[in-house]
Amino acid sequence: MTAAQGTGAYRGFYKKLINDPFDAVDEALEGFAGAHSDLVTLAAPRVIARRVPASGKVGFVVGGGSGHEPAFAGYVGHGMADAAACGNVFASPPPDVILAAIHAASTGKGVLMGYGNYAGDVLNFGLAAEFAAAEGIEVREIRVSDDVASAGPGERDKRRGIAGDIIVFKCAGAAAERGDSLGEVERIAVKANLATRSMGVALAACEVPGTGRLTFELAADEIGIGMGVHGEPGIRRGPLEPADAIAGALVAAITGEMDRAESRDVALLVNGLGATATMDQYVFYRGARRALEAAGFRVTHSYVGEYITSLEMAGASVTVTALDGELAELLDAPARTTRFVQ
Amino acid sequence: MTAAQGTGAYRGFYKKLINDPFDAVDEALEGFAGAHSDLVTLAAPRVIARRVPASGKVGFVVGGGSGHEPAFAGYVGHGMADAAACGNVFASPPPDVILAAIHAASTGKGVLMGYGNYAGDVLNFGLAAEFAAAEGIEVREIRVSDDVASAGPGERDKRRGIAGDIIVFKCAGAAAERGDSLGEVERIAVKANLATRSMGVALAACEVPGTGRLTFELAADEIGIGMGVHGEPGIRRGPLEPADAIAGALVAAITGEMDRAESRDVALLVNGLGATATMDQYVFYRGARRALEAAGFRVTHSYVGEYITSLEMAGASVTVTALDGELAELLDAPARTTRFVQ
Repeated sequence: MTAAQGTGAYRGFYKKLINDPFDAVDEALEGFAGAHSDLVTLAAPRVIARRVPASGKVGFVVGGGSGHEPAFAGYVGHGMADAAACGNVFASPPPDVILAAIHAASTGKGVLMGYGNYAGDVLNFGLAAEFAAAEGIEVREIRVSDDVASAGPGERDKRRGIAGDIIVFKCAGAAAERGDSLGEVERIAVKANLATRSMGVALAACEVPGTGRLTFELAADEIGIGMGVHGEPGIRRGPLEPADAIAGALVAAITGEMDRAESRDVALLVNGLGATATMDQYVFYRGARRALEAAGFRVTHSYVGEYITSLEMAGASVTVTALDGELAELLDAPARTTRFVQ
Repeated sequence: MTAAQGTGAYRGFYKKLINDPFDAVDEALEGFAGAHSDLVTLAAPRVIARRVPASGKVGFVVGGGSGHEPAFAGYVGHGMADAAACGNVFASPPPDVILAAIHAASTGKGVLMGYGNYAGDVLNFGLAAEFAAAEGIEVREIRVSDDVASAGPGERDKRRGIAGDIIVFKCAGAAAERGDSLGEVERIAVKANLATRSMGVALAACEVPGTGRLTFELAADEIGIGMGVHGEPGIRRGPLEPADAIAGALVAAITGEMDRAESRDVALLVNGLGATATMDQYVFYRGARRALEAAGFRVTHSYVGEYITSLEMAGASVTVTALDGELAELLDAPARTTRFVQ
């Protein structure tokens, strides 16, 4: 037994409100299921599902590593996902957990899986889909790939998924809820993913509980434009800039690759990564919105807050989705999850 | 012009996503009003009001210093407040701003003002009430005083208001929305405040933009039990403890002064102060809930998240409200604000 596993507090880089670091994921899920028992239940270890399973609709499973709360369990509920598969901190859930989530979501109409495009998730969700297929459950998947900093526009299938997850999940979940077929829900998810682009800025790293060190290093006055939420390399590192300059740079990178044929009506989502103050998030949103409007876009849907975090990482991301009437209608559809209510 | 006011980034203690630190409050409010224009509008400088004013009901004004986002503007909307008066960071709004909020909220049925019990707020809200009375607007007030660490049980009128604000605002707002009289809304607010107790723990301080220093100092391995959200002294400082031990201590302090006559059915609100990870908040909630249940309480209403922050401060608070049928019904009533939707 290590000191961290004893009765004393976990001594890491950050002061954390946890017990044994190796229990944090399961204790958080127990807390989550207890706090929101009107909406969700812990259907299996590491699987959060709707308290009252839906019937006669395409199942929608989301998931990924823990430490990104409220993702992914926070999007389980009416109008979005049926179940979430949760891994260790910043690690993909294993195939058996994903398969249990598929079982919780399946009502015989097929299941769509939605997750961010990371190697571990691709492998494990793929294996789970094979197991499910062997049981006769038809499974499709959407690998969200919105992070424009992670690969060029000609390699969208290599891009990582970040906060664009939320937009894709909302659209696909609404399509499933209204009774669309598996093929149609998949079409919507692919369309929403293609219409969605994000880029983030890292100001300070976080600490995976139990490691006692930061996930990456940034100098005292340095930021990482386009850095991944786990410290993956980005576009550039440089000195801290004003919020408007950073927001403008992120928006320019996103709009710079938007085709003329894409709608000028957009959804704008500003996502706080964990430690960045809510006040700052709204200052940052203002800068991003102004940059979009100056570039001729009209912001018709706005979302500001912590939608997918990286523990206590400081920073934020900007997500822009080009909206046609179909996607706008799906965004506007009712949802009743712990994080997304409308 | 200082360096901070130039075109360069603000160089403070924390890396912040802001522009000029002295513009942060107004830029955040502009962002807030723009992002949520379906629900709210910037009715006057530093005043957020419902986009469509209510009619024929008691007006409900909330407010306080900025830097606590989503408080207080995040609670403006159907079922809660009619308007929020916003001050500088951690400073009371001046009387003219509060008066403008009263004007935005008033429909001729009287106005209740709700705010945390801090000297500056007491002074300024009191002056605004006098100005409003001179205009013929009847104004009452509720000074939320839930922080049990800030004064003894015999001096409840000296206690500070912290996250209990949210419970009191929700109950009073619901009473106003259903058409209760001013006297009745005030009665509900007083009752909810008396039934509500909180205590928090500070893990790390925040930085008021423009000051370049922390609001208080804690050693690298030190926490402050019962410290106020602006660094006010608490019960004790000591080494970091496991989340369950801290949650247990906070719950014991709260339940220790609950009268036998008070309901064993309680609402439990865990509030993140800014930088504490959402995962940690759920671990902390689990610990608080277990402690309550071990003490014979039944948690019937749960709220976990950042309800009233202190910029990027690390820590959390526990709020417990003894619920009778009347308060439970008011908590369950519909609300449609940016932060509280049900």
